[in-house]
Amino acid sequence: MESIDFAVLGTGGIGRRTLEVSQHKDGLDAVAACDRHGVAIDHDGLDVEELLDATEGNIAGDGRGDTDSEPLTDGGVRHDDETAASASDVKQHGEDAGVVASKQAEPTDAPIDDVVAASDAFDAVLIALPNLEHDFIPRIADRFADANYEGVLIDVLKRSRVIDMLDVRADRFEDSGITFVCGAGATPGFLTGAAALAAQSFVEVESVDIWWGVGLKSGYEDNRGTVREDIAHLDGYDVETARDLSEEEIEEIVDDHNGVLEFHDMEHADDVLLERAGICDAEDVSVGGVLDLRNDEKPTTTTVEVTGTTFDGETGTNTFELDDDTSMAANVNGPALGYLQRAVERNRAGDYGVYGPAELMPGF
Amino acid sequence: MESIDFAVLGTGGIGRRTLEVSQHKDGLDAVAACDRHGVAIDHDGLDVEELLDATEGNIAGDGRGDTDSEPLTDGGVRHDDETAASASDVKQHGEDAGVVASKQAEPTDAPIDDVVAASDAFDAVLIALPNLEHDFIPRIADRFADANYEGVLIDVLKRSRVIDMLDVRADRFEDSGITFVCGAGATPGFLTGAAALAAQSFVEVESVDIWWGVGLKSGYEDNRGTVREDIAHLDGYDVETARDLSEEEIEEIVDDHNGVLEFHDMEHADDVLLERAGICDAEDVSVGGVLDLRNDEKPTTTTVEVTGTTFDGETGTNTFELDDDTSMAANVNGPALGYLQRAVERNRAGDYGVYGPAELMPGF
Repeated sequence: MESIDFAVLGTGGIGRRTLEVSQHKDGLDAVAACDRHGVAIDHDGLDVEELLDATEGNIAGDGRGDTDSEPLTDGGVRHDDETAASASDVKQHGEDAGVVASKQAEPTDAPIDDVVAASDAFDAVLIALPNLEHDFIPRIADRFADANYEGVLIDVLKRSRVIDMLDVRADRFEDSGITFVCGAGATPGFLTGAAALAAQSFVEVESVDIWWGVGLKSGYEDNRGTVREDIAHLDGYDVETARDLSEEEIEEIVDDHNGVLEFHDMEHADDVLLERAGICDAEDVSVGGVLDLRNDEKPTTTTVEVTGTTFDGETGTNTFELDDDTSMAANVNGPALGYLQRAVERNRAGDYGVYGPAELMPGF
Repeated sequence: MESIDFAVLGTGGIGRRTLEVSQHKDGLDAVAACDRHGVAIDHDGLDVEELLDATEGNIAGDGRGDTDSEPLTDGGVRHDDETAASASDVKQHGEDAGVVASKQAEPTDAPIDDVVAASDAFDAVLIALPNLEHDFIPRIADRFADANYEGVLIDVLKRSRVIDMLDVRADRFEDSGITFVCGAGATPGFLTGAAALAAQSFVEVESVDIWWGVGLKSGYEDNRGTVREDIAHLDGYDVETARDLSEEEIEEIVDDHNGVLEFHDMEHADDVLLERAGICDAEDVSVGGVLDLRNDEKPTTTTVEVTGTTFDGETGTNTFELDDDTSMAANVNGPALGYLQRAVERNRAGDYGVYGPAELMPGF
């Protein structure tokens, strides 16, 4: 297929790492990147190495696909949402941290607008921005639709309700020519894709069990947002109560659990995305895992188990297992770019609207 | 996406089972099927149940994707190749066995030509014919190209040299508008797809190890061709010497191994297909397995192990494992139809030529 020119909104942890991983992919050229204060656009392809070197110190986030929870690494947006904006100062570990430190970048106070203005030439845009408010990324998508952008938008979110908000916009996306792929990071992305593949032996899927392990000792400081989000999945908490916790209260909860948080029956987008791909009903999907904040080793092995019935009446369980040494960052960025490539194909085929990663896998 | 109308060439084991499995898939309508003596075409969708019921007894093959080795279940072709034709009598277990036993079918002495003539209306054609001569399926493809067919052709072969023959035809396919996907059954199809997905954690893949188990007691009689083909992979044999073995000599080899044949470093298309998908070099792929002719239980678990290096410098092995209770037939037909759906998308995007299943997975 023809090569793909893509842009990255946000150069926090996920954005930067995606740019890094894209250098290993054939036929995939990063042509734009932006953060809160600057934008770098080169239609012949960015010098990714220079950009990453110049902006070192701008990394944060555990890469779990949880852009939601990186308020301190906002890739940078000029938007109306002051709550979000005020929480979005770029980290300043290095001198001139942020994309403007790159000689390829220009300062701007409207980075997203600048990218939208140049989007005619893009095949895909990876949205690696924090989704502080539920509708933040959907509203970013609106700006591309308003500009009649024809191409792929892809995010690495994991909140089910954001998917609903995107669905509401399906008609606008179709009018514009946008193929929006949501949740294309590690989870739901990689793991629902594995479930979709594992389902291929079966004509009927009974259950999908997703179980993840994350070790986050060295990344804890940078990932307090993720921890807060995860606490929302613990018994007795939800998104709202977790949001209201003070830092001290969170520390206390973590201490109470000796640094190891175990989750069962998480409300995760995996279920919704597998249902829309026709694999099984959302209620047949269970998601859980263990987050260890005091070790970098994964406390448990990330696995996907798909149980189903074959056309010849047998019942079995196919299994996909990630090596404990693959970091969640590695499991976000590779799949995100891998799905991006297939999404561009779908876009070129004229299939617009909202899709989950599992829908880009062999059909079920 | 729009629904997909597909045809099946051949109603031997693989063809019939594919029709059966297609009934479980949404947006996939079987509109044509043929064998040696007849053709059934209904652009509104075949009554698959009636067709399968009427032609019961026409099943053979272990479904391992090895259409190569089903000379007795030739889906039926009128061709110039007399060697093939003479070996291709339809099995006659039932009365009027063969597709003409269905009230939807018409007798014909040119079934492929009839399907080609109607192919304007097809999105995809699954070729489930025996590839007695290496170039048999490529020559079938030629007939579609000659008719300027625009759509997908997909097979479940496993012979590397057939892929080369298809590659030679890539320009013709492009001129016609054909997207040819080769080897989309269990192996190489399903398992190379799993390798392509498992590779997503890595930026560099060091090795792919594919290990399969097949238990074939009850299917032995119907799969002598498969056994012969597999013997070609044993030490001291090749495709040519295996072809010259008498039935008695094959029995003797099987007896010598107590019915259990173990294969290492098989010359399989998996390596070629993973290399063309950019996953790794062909030489980094190893394929082996165990075929038990005296038990139906799998003698070993089918696994795919992908070892690679992550962007952050870790080395790990991701693993995909099929349940022992999933038959090879189940692992051929689901994936074949799953890939067919994605291939149609690629075709609609205007990407023509020759592809392997791994190229339909998230890009690496």
